[in-house]
This record gives sequence, structure tokens and C-alpha cells, in this order.
Amino acid sequence: MTKDQSNAMWGGRFAAGPDAIMEAINASIGFDKRLAAQDIAGSRAHAAMLAARGIISDTDAKAIREGLLTVLSEIEGGTFAFSTALEDIHMNVEARLKEVIGDPAGRLHTARSRNDQVATDFRLWVRDQIDAAVGGIEALIRALLAQAEAGAGWVMPGFTHLQTAQPVTWGHHMMAYVEMFARDMGRFADARVRMNECPLGAAALAGTSFPIDRHMTAEALGFDRPMANSLDAVSDRDFALEFLGAASICAMHLSRFAEELVIWSSAQFRFVTLSDRFSTGSSIMPQKKNPDAAELIRAKIGRIFGANVALMTVMKGLPLAYSKDMQEDKEQVFDAADNLMLALAAMEGMVRDMTANRPALEAAAASGFSTATDLADWLVRVLGMPFRQAHHVTGTLVALAEQKGCDLPELSLAEMQTVHSDIRVEVFDVLGVHNSVASRISYGGTAPEQVRAQVARWREQLG
Amino acid sequence: MTKDQSNAMWGGRFAAGPDAIMEAINASIGFDKRLAAQDIAGSRAHAAMLAARGIISDTDAKAIREGLLTVLSEIEGGTFAFSTALEDIHMNVEARLKEVIGDPAGRLHTARSRNDQVATDFRLWVRDQIDAAVGGIEALIRALLAQAEAGAGWVMPGFTHLQTAQPVTWGHHMMAYVEMFARDMGRFADARVRMNECPLGAAALAGTSFPIDRHMTAEALGFDRPMANSLDAVSDRDFALEFLGAASICAMHLSRFAEELVIWSSAQFRFVTLSDRFSTGSSIMPQKKNPDAAELIRAKIGRIFGANVALMTVMKGLPLAYSKDMQEDKEQVFDAADNLMLALAAMEGMVRDMTANRPALEAAAASGFSTATDLADWLVRVLGMPFRQAHHVTGTLVALAEQKGCDLPELSLAEMQTVHSDIRVEVFDVLGVHNSVASRISYGGTAPEQVRAQVARWREQLG
Amino acid sequence: MTKDQSNAMWGGRFAAGPDAIMEAINASIGFDKRLAAQDIAGSRAHAAMLAARGIISDTDAKAIREGLLTVLSEIEGGTFAFSTALEDIHMNVEARLKEVIGDPAGRLHTARSRNDQVATDFRLWVRDQIDAAVGGIEALIRALLAQAEAGAGWVMPGFTHLQTAQPVTWGHHMMAYVEMFARDMGRFADARVRMNECPLGAAALAGTSFPIDRHMTAEALGFDRPMANSLDAVSDRDFALEFLGAASICAMHLSRFAEELVIWSSAQFRFVTLSDRFSTGSSIMPQKKNPDAAELIRAKIGRIFGANVALMTVMKGLPLAYSKDMQEDKEQVFDAADNLMLALAAMEGMVRDMTANRPALEAAAASGFSTATDLADWLVRVLGMPFRQAHHVTGTLVALAEQKGCDLPELSLAEMQTVHSDIRVEVFDVLGVHNSVASRISYGGTAPEQVRAQVARWREQLG
Amino acid sequence: MTKDQSNAMWGGRFAAGPDAIMEAINASIGFDKRLAAQDIAGSRAHAAMLAARGIISDTDAKAIREGLLTVLSEIEGGTFAFSTALEDIHMNVEARLKEVIGDPAGRLHTARSRNDQVATDFRLWVRDQIDAAVGGIEALIRALLAQAEAGAGWVMPGFTHLQTAQPVTWGHHMMAYVEMFARDMGRFADARVRMNECPLGAAALAGTSFPIDRHMTAEALGFDRPMANSLDAVSDRDFALEFLGAASICAMHLSRFAEELVIWSSAQFRFVTLSDRFSTGSSIMPQKKNPDAAELIRAKIGRIFGANVALMTVMKGLPLAYSKDMQEDKEQVFDAADNLMLALAAMEGMVRDMTANRPALEAAAASGFSTATDLADWLVRVLGMPFRQAHHVTGTLVALAEQKGCDLPELSLAEMQTVHSDIRVEVFDVLGVHNSVASRISYGGTAPEQVRAQVARWREQLG
Repeated sequence: MTKDQSNAMWGGRFAAGPDAIMEAINASIGFDKRLAAQDIAGSRAHAAMLAARGIISDTDAKAIREGLLTVLSEIEGGTFAFSTALEDIHMNVEARLKEVIGDPAGRLHTARSRNDQVATDFRLWVRDQIDAAVGGIEALIRALLAQAEAGAGWVMPGFTHLQTAQPVTWGHHMMAYVEMFARDMGRFADARVRMNECPLGAAALAGTSFPIDRHMTAEALGFDRPMANSLDAVSDRDFALEFLGAASICAMHLSRFAEELVIWSSAQFRFVTLSDRFSTGSSIMPQKKNPDAAELIRAKIGRIFGANVALMTVMKGLPLAYSKDMQEDKEQVFDAADNLMLALAAMEGMVRDMTANRPALEAAAASGFSTATDLADWLVRVLGMPFRQAHHVTGTLVALAEQKGCDLPELSLAEMQTVHSDIRVEVFDVLGVHNSVASRISYGGTAPEQVRAQVARWREQLG
Repeated sequence: MTKDQSNAMWGGRFAAGPDAIMEAINASIGFDKRLAAQDIAGSRAHAAMLAARGIISDTDAKAIREGLLTVLSEIEGGTFAFSTALEDIHMNVEARLKEVIGDPAGRLHTARSRNDQVATDFRLWVRDQIDAAVGGIEALIRALLAQAEAGAGWVMPGFTHLQTAQPVTWGHHMMAYVEMFARDMGRFADARVRMNECPLGAAALAGTSFPIDRHMTAEALGFDRPMANSLDAVSDRDFALEFLGAASICAMHLSRFAEELVIWSSAQFRFVTLSDRFSTGSSIMPQKKNPDAAELIRAKIGRIFGANVALMTVMKGLPLAYSKDMQEDKEQVFDAADNLMLALAAMEGMVRDMTANRPALEAAAASGFSTATDLADWLVRVLGMPFRQAHHVTGTLVALAEQKGCDLPELSLAEMQTVHSDIRVEVFDVLGVHNSVASRISYGGTAPEQVRAQVARWREQLG
Repeated sequence: MTKDQSNAMWGGRFAAGPDAIMEAINASIGFDKRLAAQDIAGSRAHAAMLAARGIISDTDAKAIREGLLTVLSEIEGGTFAFSTALEDIHMNVEARLKEVIGDPAGRLHTARSRNDQVATDFRLWVRDQIDAAVGGIEALIRALLAQAEAGAGWVMPGFTHLQTAQPVTWGHHMMAYVEMFARDMGRFADARVRMNECPLGAAALAGTSFPIDRHMTAEALGFDRPMANSLDAVSDRDFALEFLGAASICAMHLSRFAEELVIWSSAQFRFVTLSDRFSTGSSIMPQKKNPDAAELIRAKIGRIFGANVALMTVMKGLPLAYSKDMQEDKEQVFDAADNLMLALAAMEGMVRDMTANRPALEAAAASGFSTATDLADWLVRVLGMPFRQAHHVTGTLVALAEQKGCDLPELSLAEMQTVHSDIRVEVFDVLGVHNSVASRISYGGTAPEQVRAQVARWREQLG
Repeated sequence: MTKDQSNAMWGGRFAAGPDAIMEAINASIGFDKRLAAQDIAGSRAHAAMLAARGIISDTDAKAIREGLLTVLSEIEGGTFAFSTALEDIHMNVEARLKEVIGDPAGRLHTARSRNDQVATDFRLWVRDQIDAAVGGIEALIRALLAQAEAGAGWVMPGFTHLQTAQPVTWGHHMMAYVEMFARDMGRFADARVRMNECPLGAAALAGTSFPIDRHMTAEALGFDRPMANSLDAVSDRDFALEFLGAASICAMHLSRFAEELVIWSSAQFRFVTLSDRFSTGSSIMPQKKNPDAAELIRAKIGRIFGANVALMTVMKGLPLAYSKDMQEDKEQVFDAADNLMLALAAMEGMVRDMTANRPALEAAAASGFSTATDLADWLVRVLGMPFRQAHHVTGTLVALAEQKGCDLPELSLAEMQTVHSDIRVEVFDVLGVHNSVASRISYGGTAPEQVRAQVARWREQLG
């Protein structure tokens, strides 16, 4: 490439020169305007506290607090004119407040700085997302409970290595995801407790000499307490990383369930039929039903965990206190949160709408001598046979059935006794997929009664 | 490359053909032998429960439990011969147990499978690591508290953008890390509570028809309860991911402190002197002291978070229940845990040994008119000047000081009054770095009294 | 949280129900409209080929090709109304084309599908970004060459472990980055060659029975050839991953230089002064100059490599051919490309504007007996002394200098001879930082003549 | 946890105190001994050059070069006693050389340092791995070519969204992976060209004043040239990152194929039978064949890309030149390389051994009216019907067939003509899966003749 060509091509994007480049890389208003409500809530709490402590007059505080509501309504109403020259949401709001209420606006920034302000805004935003994530997961769990209750007794294959291993119940499979998503809720809840401390009043980094009351602002904003070290308050973003970590694990769980739904929807499996609302079709191939939503949910782990990697990389090796690198925190968290909520909502909808194909599930569950383990266990449990011998006897019986082209429960008792004479008619109680699942009544096992007990426990717990 | 060359080169590594390749990719004994103690503890609990429930005889249980102790002592003594042909730690232990006690060994595997066994072993191992991490962090926090207490009143620059912003105290800076590492402890503690459930008894995936008592084994192994869904018990590794996530955030905090130590050790900063034990020198350059340990700690976030990425990627999109992919979980967690413990120990040692260079810290804190903010705040707070005017007056005074080649507190009151006649002698109470930090008494601020209060609170809390 | 509360909170975002959720997760027009120009170029080439092969009439092809230009001008002019109901850029363009030219629009989709269409669009887009990246890197290299040429002879410390190790020249340090960024250019160039193959004509996945000429469309779009396997053509995104990989390594290099600029801008180092255009200041602290642009560039590796992780995670384990997961490819690449270009432009601007502080650099270079190695080498090279003895003699001389409070070149010859009588006056030729750097004339060494030779070579090479 | 308990637990691992911790974190001999052959090759080349340039005597050079061969044979023979106190491979070799040949060993380190030495060793090692990777990929491609040639005409379903979309040929599917892996080879080859420059002679970072000949050592070690900037030579690890990037993309391709093999091996698909050598079975379930190797291959992307993330994170923001952080480069690359080679070998073995289940593939290919697209294309191509009308007619015919419970080619011509009277008997030429694939003769299409042509081209190219 010649120099001129490269310059031309290159120049196009940043034709306006250094100032345009600096504005493009430096301004955050393009994304941090999403913090508007949090920013205004924080400022209103701060103004009330300044007045309560006599740092500003009640009149000024009142003007500020009302003026901020006006600004908020403008933003919510879509009539606010954001300015890139004013860089960020804090400056945009403050500049407009000045226009609305005049001089008292200048008192608002007393005893705080943009460093503690943005840390407060961001915590408030992430806290809201945690609540939304918990709500979304809870809704998904309820959808799973409905499926589990309906199908507590339906049999399906339990896979290892995607090979049929043992029969399980549909309800049991659904309840496995209830457990996973419930732990995800727990992770978000723990993150909320840990991060629910207020940075406001840390000022630039060192605290302030104004006689502020940090407990008052903390309480007004729903925080449990003020953060105990002002340097830490403006320097760390571990709460955002913890949110992204919890979101990533939740997205991992979603990706596993989504993978199953994609496989189960294939013509070869036909375990499940997704509703038209969450799939797309072909105008000329009536049986083709593409599980688009499931695939997109499966993919979301990419961008959510990618955001986690991004912010972890940004934070690596940053000296205290505030460095501008940290401005890169918000877009990652915004995108991850949006996509997690979307994936949860789509999964909830799919689960509510989907129909299990019971005959296909049961047929698959019964294939491959899937109750051979039950037979072996019976030999050990009832006849007291050593494990190794039980396996040998079972193998011989399976070979016999295979030779006859039938499944284990279709062998006659007499045929079985040719292999081992102690076998009694009670053995049929554990053969056949329904008997098999019914027998697995150990705590947390796949027996319908166990599944129903777990459904009841969860309903009780969720209230 | 010609075909022969490539084959020759290629063939070298796997000359023994397919069987050697399969053994190399499939066997896990090379790394999962680290689970030996956990595996044996789990088996001993399982045997006791089987006997208590009458599934095996007391005699067999006694033989198994004593035999397992013999095996454990062989492993701990280094006399155990691990076999790759036996694939994993479970098979190695069981085969040896058979040699030691004979037939009763065969009863041990009743009502369990390798799937719930490995899940149990791995949870026990991770739980131990969580305890070790908490211990390591606590030791580091104690080292930081010692530094903070000693230097509660030493002044140093508080940086933003690595530019001096305001004076802070050494103790305050140390306490910022106390807060961070304390949250890391909290993350590990929460992970422990969430993961402390016992998979044993889930069997292959569906539970079992043997009348086992999962609460008994759970209790014997120190778990809070058995896991409530057998499919979930053998399928998920979220507890390992949560451990890696907590470790990664902790490593991020370590990387930030390590970066500071590297910068502070430079000839240009000279804020701190590291001990010879945690640095290396040059035989011919006496002043060169390489902060090797700090650099290596800084780097550990790479492999710890890399392990997190690795396992997250492995788990993405895996259908239930067990897939062999999950065998890749352990090496990642082993390596991350080892390196986190090492980094914590090295950091603790460095912090205990390091010496703050008080004159350099104080000189740096005083440079760049770092108390200009204090002056502006004073004008607002004491004279009731609007913020904008206070900034203007401060700027003029700084310009005056700069012109005179002195710092703000070296201006006379008369000189100050030429800029604004209301300025009173009390202004000197906030100028100068010691006055500045002393004035920042807001909760969590940098004032020595605040720092001492926080040190006391943490000492009380840690006990 | 009660059920009602959680539902209310949760419901807010997706109040419109399943259809709104599916549209939100499924539609791509929100981002893939950036492919408009590529999509239209691809369609125009396709139409021309269809006519040339007699598959559609010349009249239809002409109408299509002209109609597409109309659509393009509407999009570029900002008057095009994008529709989410039409899902993606392909459908939006095609629907509008129908409105503009009527029935012939329906012929355009003959012998292709959205699968090969989007693969083609995306390759064209990535190819443009590669060219832009190469242009941006070249501009940065030119800025570095200007700095290197000016400062070929300025001395500064060469660091290891951020400790002064040996003197180097400013030009040499700049040229180290020229080498790194030149390799980055090479990576992008290699990626371009590899990815410059045309998917068009692969149709849905199997090719087509229409007598198309894939070489013709490939050539028309500037591709080197059509892709040789239609399944591969619609299934892989390795070209996007390779782009992200090259971008990540380039971002890594940028992060290192940015880190240096942040450290060099500190009050403690003062090695460099950044221009006001790429930094921000404090209204009351005149010496505070925050290196905002450098910090933001340093952070960009996070989101660029995060995008790499995201797409790698998405692609993991996807069966052939097209899966909807792959729709997640574009936003990651768009964001990474935008941020790489921005970081390159900002770095170029900073390098052009920055001023080296020669006295500070030289003073730092001379500190810490940084020419001790030169002395030892001289003893070996000129006196033929064994390495170990040379180190001992050097150590003794350094101790002597330290004791006298002077640097090595300030010792007299007589003083030196008290340590070793063979030392001659020529030793002074290698002592002192200027002598030191001048002596390192090995190929690629730091001597000014070597630096100038490298600058000349690069100027020649770039043309 | 009480203080004593935590200390006890914690203390256990690093009981020996600070010195043990520093040795544990600092020493690299535990892993860098894998560089022994490269280290000795580099030293032998260096010694020869030093003698050629008169810097050391021929006698010394001869002693050094022969002594190093002795050391190498000790290492290869397993009799070498590695010492952790000697930290790394360089010191271990040098110390032993001293024992073997005495004083001349001390001359070896003239005009070099550990910084350029380790950079050279590591480049040589990575270069070998690139060659091994290329060899491994080539072997895998040959296995794929054999499968493709045998099955050029076998039909199977071409999937989108894991739903049958159109018939393709087995050979075509295999050849899609040939294209992917061939690009992987290209990536490694490009990386090799770029990284094949010699750091030796860069010394610590600044070059040297000894009259060395860097071109001579570069040539002796098979490098294309010496690196052009000594600071760059010791500071960058982009070659390792590029290797990891290429390995990660290759692992991504492997993960996709492995996923297909897992799905294809399920009882529901039965598309393929893996050999016993690369799968495991169940003693009592004869049909259960677990695709262990495929699952482990699928998982390898985790640790390989995890290594990429780890090293990228380590390198982020490191100032020049050498920092100790960079010691973390080797273990990541070692582990990734080992696992890539293993995954390639296992995949090659599986592909060679696997058996396609032709009846199941063909039956699946024919299901779901998979030739509806062929019918629609025929209506457009032969009857000149507009696309939309062709889709309508096709949909009606599919509905007719569905109603009759037959596939499209089983409709009679008369039945077809009731839907559209222009349909002629030639339509049957494209219906049926064999006709369908035979018709897709566009370049790169799935027609057997196209597949055979591509196989031939690749055989020609590989030689």
C-alpha cells in the first residue's frame, strides 16, 4: 500500500484530527447515560445530607432536589439533549441543573467528586441488575417446576457421554436445572450483600474535611453502610467482576440446557417440540423447526464471559486509586446484563411453551438394556451376590436378551433361571424403565416420589 | 515438508500407536492422585454407612476401613505404585485395597459409582483449598494491619492516573487492600457454604435402589447436607468455577498491589525497600534490586484466570449428565489453587519485610501543590465561598506560589490576602500534607485517627 | 422477594411477552446494518454473474444493480427506514429493492442463500478492517520513526524489572516498538491473504444446481478465488478469530507502550511530556497532567481480547453447518475493530505530539552505576580477563565510587589502578552513558549508528 | 476460624518460611528443563561464533562445544541432577559444564545474557512445536482424505441448526474439515516465518560491545536472520501468543468435529461407529460405547485457549525490557502444545478407525423432505418460474406428499401435475437424495465429482 492510499483510508475515520480522536476515546456519555436515574438519585441523597449537616442551606437543597427531578423527567421523556462535549452523565446532569435552577446547582458538588459519584452510580445500577437477574432466574425456576410436576413420572434416558446409561424421569432432569439455577440465584444474592456499601463521601480518594454524614446518604440509597476506606471506594471494581462471574456461571448453565434443547429438537432425537414462538421454520420443509432461541441462548455465554475477561484484563495491575482505564467497566457490564436478562427471559418462555414427546422419551429410555444396572443391583441387594459376580450374571442375561432380540423384562423367569437359579419373580419389579425409576428412591434420586418431594420443597421455599 | 519427514517427526511422540495415544489422553491418574486422601475419606464414610444400613456386614466394613488406612499410609509414605493402566485414583486405590484385604474390597463399590465418587473427592479437595485460601488471605491481612498501624500517620501521595492528587496516609493505603482482601475472604466463604453439599449416593446419575443414608455420609465428611438432585450432583462443576472466580478476583487485587510495589521500588519512586529475601540483585550494580517476587505475583492472575477461562470453556454447552470432557476440571483447579496460595504467601512475606521510605513518601506527597484541594475546600467550608469562586482563588494562589518557587503553606498570610482579603490564619491548618490528611476525618477518610479506628475494628473482627 | 414483586420487576423489561423477547434475541438488524455496503456490493456482483451465465435476463440484472445503488444511497444518506420485523440487513435491502424496482428483485436471490450471503458480507467487512488496521499501524510506525530519528542519540535508562540496567538510546526504545508493530502488520497481512476467498455460491450449504460462475463473483469482489468447499464456506468463522487474534496481540503491544507513557508521565519519572490534546489537567493543580488517552489505550486490550474470548467460546463445539449461535460473531468484531482503530489513532497522535525530557532521561540513565557492565565487558574484551574476575574487579571499583559518592567515570585512572594495575586510560571510552551506548554496535544494538541504520531501513521499506 | 488454626493450616504448605516461598515462586528449573536441548544448541552456536570472531580461543570453544554434548547426553540419559538452587536450565547446564571442562566454561557467557539466551531457547522450542503441529495436522488431513475418497458418493444430511436442511455427501463433509485444518496449517506456517529470527546477541537488552557476528549464530541455529532490535528481542513474546492463537483456532476446529462425533455416536443418530481403541464400553450394556476420546478432544480447546488468555494477561501492560512476569510464558505454551499434539493424534486415529453407518446416514438424509429446495430450484431453473411462485408450488407438493405419507420422489408425475401442469418427468432427476447431491456441481459443491476433484487437488498439493 502506498503512503497516500493508507493515509486516505486511515484518515477517513478520524478526519477531524487529534481533537476528534481524543473526544472519541475519552467521552463516556454515549454509554454512561444509562446511569442517569442512579446519578440523580445519588445527587438527591447527597443534597439532602449536605443540608441536614448544615453544609448547604435548606433552600438550596430543596432547589437542587426538585431541579434534579425535572432533569430526570426530561431524560425519561426523551427531551434531554446529551452533549458529548460535557463528556459524561455527571457533567450533563449538572450542567442542565444549572440551567434549570441557577447558582444553587454549584453547591451540589461540595464534598464529593466524580470518582465517588460514578462508583455510587455504578453500584446502584449493578444492584438493580442483580435484582433483575434474581427475578429472571426465579421465573425460569417456576417454569421448570411446572414441567417437573407435570412430568414427575415420565421416563427418559439418563445420558452419560450422550449414551443412554439409565432411565430417569423428565421431572428429575428438570429439577437438576432448578438446583443449578437456584445456586445461581444464591451467587447473585451473595454478591448483592457484599457490594451493598456506599462509596459516596469518599470524594476524590481521601475523604473530605466537610462534616458529612456518610451513613445518612448510604441509608437513603438503600445501602447497608458506607464503605470503610475511601481509597478502596473509588479504586475497586470487584463488585462488577463478581456480578460478571455469577452471570457467566448462570450463562454456562443456560448453555447446557440450550444445547440439550437443540439436540432434543433434532429429527433424530425428537424428545421435545419447541413452540413456534421460539423457533423458526422453512416455507417449504414443514418438519424443519429451527431452535433459534435455544442456539442464541447457548451463544450468550460467549459475550457474557467475554465481558468478564475484558474487565478482568482491564483491572489487572492498575495502581490505586482511580485510573482512566476503569472507564471501560460500564459497557462490559451493560452488555452482559442485557444479554443475561434476555437469555433468561427467552429460556423461561421456551420452557413454558415446550412439549415433551413422551413416547419418544420412553422408547429411548428403554433402549440399550438401560436397566441392566438395576438387574445387577438387585442381584447384589436381594440375593447378596458379590458385585463382580452380579455383573457377570447380568452380562450373560443381557447377551441372552440380545440374542433373542428382546429387552431384559421380556425374558421369562425360566430363561433367567437358566443363567442363575436363585433369580426370583421379584426381579421384574426393577426391570422395565418405570420399575427402574420407581426403585431409585434414595434421597435426591430419580423416583417420581422423590421428584415430587423436591418440587414441593422448592414451591414452599419460593413462596 | 516431505511426507516422510513429517511422519517421522510426528511419529516420534506417539510411536507406540493408537493405544498409547488413547492411554495418554484418557488416563487421569497422573494428576488425580492428588485426590487420594479425599478419595479414601469418602470411601471410609461410605463403607461405614453401608454397614450401618445393613447393606454390607460390619466385618467387611471394618476390613475396608482399616485397609483404606493402610493404602493411605502407603500413598503418604511414597511407597504406593500408581498404575496408568488403572486410569484413575479410584481404581488405583480400589485395586490396592483388594490386594490388602481381599474379597471384601469388592463390596465397597456397592451403591455408588465413579461419577458420584469423583464429584465428592473434588468437592472435598476444593473445600480444603477454600480454607487454605482464607487462611492465606487472613495472614496477608494481618501483615497489612501491622504496616497500617505503624504508618497510620505517615503521609504519601494519593494518586489518580499515577499523578499526585492529594496526600493520603500510608496506613490508609494499606487499609484499602485490607478491605479488598477481606471481600475476597468473603467470596471464598460464600462459595464454601454453597458448595458444601455431598454428591455421594447420587450413584451414576439416577440415585440407587439400595437403602442408603445420604445424610450420614454427608455428615461424616463434614458436608452440610446431601445434594438434592442426583443428576445435578454428578453433572455440575459450578463450585469449581466459583472457586476459580473468587481466586481470579483475589489475584486481580494481588496484581494491583504487586504493580505498586514494582513501581514503588524503582529508582525514580524509591517509596519502598523490599527485603533481600523477596528480591534479587546484581553482583556489580549494588543499587539494583529486582522485585522478582512482586513481578511473579503480578503475573499469577494470568494462569489463575486462564484456568477459569479453560474450565468455563470446557463446561460450555455440555449436555447432562457426566461427559468425559469434565475430566479436564482438575488440573486447572489444582494449578490455580497452588499458584494462588504461593502468591498469597509471597505477598504476605513481602509485606511483612518491606520498609517504607518515609522521607521519599512525604516529599512526593507535598509536590505538585497537592493540598490545593484542601485550600479550595477551606474557602468553601469556612468562608462560604461558592465552589467555582473558590477554585478561581485557589488557582490564583497556586500561580503565586509557583511564581515564587514555593509550596502553598510557604506563602505568607499577607500574600494570600492580596488574592482574597477574607483569608484568615486558620487556613494554614489545612495546608501542608500533615494538616491535609489530618483534616479528612469523614468516615473512611485518610486521617490517622480514621485509619487507627479501622485497624482496631479489623483486629477485633479477626480475633 | 415475593412473587409479585419479582414478576413486576422482571416483567417491566419484556412486558410485551414472548414475541417481544423472541424479536429482541433474534433480530440482527440493530447491528448488521453496518454490513449494508458489503451486502449491496455482493448482491450487485451476484446479479451481474447471474446475467452473464444466462440465469436471469440482462434487463433484470440491470434493474437490480441500479436499484441496489439507489438503496445504498438511501442508506448512506440516512433516509432508509430499517425494520426490525425484517430481521437483518439482507431482508431489509431486498424488501426495499422490491419497492424500488418491483418483481425483478425476486430474481436476485436465485442460486444463493442468506448463509453464503452473510459469510460474504462479513468477509468483505473484515477485509476492510484489516486494511484499515494496516493503515493505522503504518501511520503509528511513521510517528515512531520520527521520534527515533530525532532521538537516535539521546540516552535513557534501559530497564529490567523497572530497575535501571543499562543505558540505551531513545531512538532504540522507539524502534523496539517499530519492530513489534511491524510484526502486527504482518499478522494482519497474512490473515488477509488467508481469508480472501469468496463464499458466494455456496448457497445454503451444499452448492447449487444453477450453472453459476463462482470465479466471476469472487473476482468482482476482489477475492483471490472462491472457497473450495461449500459447507466450510458457510460454517467457519476462523477468519474473524484470526482477525481478533491479530488485533489482540497488537492491543497487547499498545498496552505496553501505554503503560510506559503513564509511568514516564508521573512526577517521579518525568521522562516525557504529553501534549494537552491527549491529556487532561486540573483547574487548580497546574502540574497535574492526566495521561487519559494512554490509560484508555492501555485498557483497550480488555475489550479487544474479550471479544476474542467471546467468539472463541461461541464457536466451541458447534456442529456444521450454520447454527444461529454464529449470529453473535459480528458485534464482537465490530466492537474490537472500532476500538483497535481508535487506540491506534490515539497512540499515533500521542507519539507525534509527545516531548522527551532529555535531561531527566540522561540523569536517570546515569544513575545506579548503569555502566558497570560496560566496565566488566571492557576488562574481559581488552584485558582478556576471565569473566568472574572481571566481575570482581568491577564490583570493587563500584564500591570505591559509591564510597566516594561519585559515578564510575568520575574515578581517576590512578584510583582505578589501585584496584587493578592493568587498567588503562582507554577504559574511559566505555564509561559514561554516551560512551556506553556508542559502544554497543552489535547488529540491532543501541548505538546511535545502529538506530539510524534501522530507521533508514524502515523508511526504505515503507516507501 | 481462630488465628491458630488458620496459621497451622496455612503454615503447613510453606513451613520452611520465606526462603522456601521465594524459591518456590522464583525457580523455573521445574519446567524450563524442557528447553535443555535448545539451550545447549544455542550455547554451542554461540561458542563457535565467539571463536570465529576471535573473542575466545579455538581451544576453549572446542572444549565448550564438546562439554555441552556431554551434558546433553547426561540430560537425555536421565543421569543429570537438576538443582533448584541453580534456578533455571541455563544455570544448571553452565554449572555442570564447569564441572566437566573447568575454567573455559566461564568464557561461554561472554557477550550474551540470560535474557537473550532464554528468548533464543524458547523460540527454538516453539519452532519445533510448529513443525510438529504442521506434521500432526497433515496426518489428520490425510486421514480425512481417505474417508472423503471412500465416501465421496455416500449421502448424509446437511444440517443447519442441527435440523436436516439438504443432502450432502460424506466426502463433502470430510473435505470441509480438510479446508479448515489446512488453514490451521497455514497459520502455523505464517507464524513460523514471522518468528524465525534470532534474539542471540541482544545480550541483556542493549546489544554488546564485543565484535560478535549475529548472522553467524542465527544461521547456525536455522534462523532466517538476527532480530533487528535488541530491546525487542528480549522483551516480546508475541511469537508465543501467535502460536497459542493458531493452536486455539485449530482446537476450535477439533472441538466442532469432536462434537459431531459425539452426537453421531449417540443411539439416536448412529451415523458413525468409533473403534474400540478410541472409546470405552460398559461391562453390562453391550451397545454403550462412550466416545471418550472425542469428548476429551472437544475439551482441549479449554486448556489451549486458557493458556492463550493466561499469557495475554501476563503480557498486558508490561514495560520494556525484561520483567520477571515473563517467566510465566513457558508452562502455558508447554501445556498447550502437548495437548494440541495429543488431540491431533487422537483425532487422526479416530478418523482412520471410524466407520460410517451408510444406511443410517442415507435414511436421515432423505427425511424431512430434504430435497424440497431441489424441487424449487428446478421450477425456477427449468420452468423459469419466479422464486416466490416456485416456493408456493413446492410447498403444495410437499403438503401433498405429507398427506400421502410419502417422500417427494414417490409422488407420481400425474400427481405433481395436478399442482402445476408444466412439471415434466425430468423433475425426478433432482429429487431423491442421490440426484440432489449429484446436481450440486457448482464449484465447491457437494456433488461426488466435485468432492473427488477436491480430494485429488489436496493429494497433489500435499505430495
